[in-house]
Amino acid sequence: MMSNMNRQWRLTGRPVGEDFDSVMAFGEEPIKSPGDGEILVKNLHLSLDPANRAWMNEGDTYKAAIPLGGVMEGFTVGVVEESKHPGFSVGDTVSGFGHWEDYSVTNGEGWAKSPDLNKQAFGAHLGIYAIVGPTAYFGLLNICKPQPGETVVVTTAAGAVGSLVGQIAKTKGCRVIGITGSDEKCTWITEELGFDAAINYKTEDVPAALAKLCPDGIDCHFEQVGDSDILDAVLNLMNQNGRISMCGWISAYNLSELPAGPRALLNIIVKRIKMEGFIVFDFMDQMAQCYADLATWLDDGRLKYRVDVVDDLSNAVDALHTLYAGTNQGKLIVKVQDDPSLA
Amino acid sequence: MMSNMNRQWRLTGRPVGEDFDSVMAFGEEPIKSPGDGEILVKNLHLSLDPANRAWMNEGDTYKAAIPLGGVMEGFTVGVVEESKHPGFSVGDTVSGFGHWEDYSVTNGEGWAKSPDLNKQAFGAHLGIYAIVGPTAYFGLLNICKPQPGETVVVTTAAGAVGSLVGQIAKTKGCRVIGITGSDEKCTWITEELGFDAAINYKTEDVPAALAKLCPDGIDCHFEQVGDSDILDAVLNLMNQNGRISMCGWISAYNLSELPAGPRALLNIIVKRIKMEGFIVFDFMDQMAQCYADLATWLDDGRLKYRVDVVDDLSNAVDALHTLYAGTNQGKLIVKVQDDPSLA
Repeated sequence: MMSNMNRQWRLTGRPVGEDFDSVMAFGEEPIKSPGDGEILVKNLHLSLDPANRAWMNEGDTYKAAIPLGGVMEGFTVGVVEESKHPGFSVGDTVSGFGHWEDYSVTNGEGWAKSPDLNKQAFGAHLGIYAIVGPTAYFGLLNICKPQPGETVVVTTAAGAVGSLVGQIAKTKGCRVIGITGSDEKCTWITEELGFDAAINYKTEDVPAALAKLCPDGIDCHFEQVGDSDILDAVLNLMNQNGRISMCGWISAYNLSELPAGPRALLNIIVKRIKMEGFIVFDFMDQMAQCYADLATWLDDGRLKYRVDVVDDLSNAVDALHTLYAGTNQGKLIVKVQDDPSLA
Repeated sequence: MMSNMNRQWRLTGRPVGEDFDSVMAFGEEPIKSPGDGEILVKNLHLSLDPANRAWMNEGDTYKAAIPLGGVMEGFTVGVVEESKHPGFSVGDTVSGFGHWEDYSVTNGEGWAKSPDLNKQAFGAHLGIYAIVGPTAYFGLLNICKPQPGETVVVTTAAGAVGSLVGQIAKTKGCRVIGITGSDEKCTWITEELGFDAAINYKTEDVPAALAKLCPDGIDCHFEQVGDSDILDAVLNLMNQNGRISMCGWISAYNLSELPAGPRALLNIIVKRIKMEGFIVFDFMDQMAQCYADLATWLDDGRLKYRVDVVDDLSNAVDALHTLYAGTNQGKLIVKVQDDPSLA
């Protein structure tokens, strides 16, 4: 039996730096009923992603800023509890861009039924399927188009997206160098995930280490941080016709003023580099193939992941801090409430 | 009758800043004879281009650095005086990447016979044909792919390349905004060349002026300078799926240490921008179509240009200074020696 109350996190102000706590209010209100053409979703899992922080700022990004007073937004997975929409039935597992709350009413826009994944339960592998797998897949394959034998560099390489980027690059026969922030993460991506080498940016000289580890230069770079010194090191080592996939800029999301950028952009001309940004939603029309490939690679052991599950919606704000501190161990998921499909 | 001496400019050191004078030596040696498979070219015109300065530096760019003691390099147009090469005949007008000298011996690599151009003499329209036209053509059309109604921004808009970029964008039905460095240049590009608007970056607030002149945002940007503040202004105004053609970075060619880059690269992700570098030689296989289009547009009045001809090879170094000072009035060409075909 469901409770008739809906717990919610609302955004009450624009955060400064990482002080989200003072602008996020946890409360509850009665569950709404779906109108014609709508469904009621019981949210089971909430994905916490670096971009969430950017949405809290006043300016619009690739989506509108979260309005003040509005429920915080995020990628969620849930089950349809009530449907007045012809495309969804009670009991369907669905995912979409929803809200930080127990129950959501939606007209289905931005939501989809879970794909059929070689008998894998969608909600059981959120470390791959919750946006991060498609982000890694399209950002690497569609933007960088890595070729066998090429050298690929990935920042936040032990993160939820970066770890998959490296493994997908390995499926394409590339040499993969990961940049990450601890020796433990370096060991994990090389020994468990098959990266060819790793650099701990907190203890190593990144330009020197990259130069040593990339004797044939860099062909593809997957950027998630926006650190100018690391970008300069990469630009200086890039080969002719290199490709840079611009996925994230986590260094900037908490800042009100952006720092100076990389000095070495001249290389983009000299080496005919392509630097291109993307958002995973740009590739919705190719999502079925993406899920099918990810499921295949998960089945045959080519993709591994770690997931860091935080119990209960009430802990979501605390959990978001660990994402920026880099202390989460794997894809950060909030288990909103019990998932009957996994019981 | 030809003299038997060959005047040459040799690079004797690596210049610091704009002090080329102390590292360029003017001398002469006997004209060499072509061996089997070689031709002797009498150089008539020498094109001075911003990238020339970059080639003087120690590091290789998209081509090897000019060796110390070697003859200075540049795009030249000449006539074949002697041929032991099956592809060239005496009297052919040829162009290629040659040297700052009266006579060159070459095996023909990097050289081509002048294209057939609607009865236009190649050497008579070097303001278009001496690399600058193809650079503008490929950099705008192949990288930016401008669509009718889109807004295009061009830096160094009154320069040899920039002025053609804007005019080619107009042939594609775009709205074109040029950024340049004097009121006279602003007037020329708007009143004579048909740009929709111009900004004098020396007297105007570029971000404010761009925002006012681009009410629908910017779709395409053609970059030749590398000024971080202007790039930031452009990045902040770019529309979703905007394209930036990276053609030149003239601000850096004279510097030993590069300045900090643009802060606003995050826009590349948010707006899915593509920033891509190119070198005109990447498109050699499409050169015939390029020359044909340029000749057509020159014939029908859609392309206009100014050419600033400096008389005699001995004045080439002095002329190069005017390029960086921005005081040349149009495409800078050195008339190496008399051109019999134009007599």
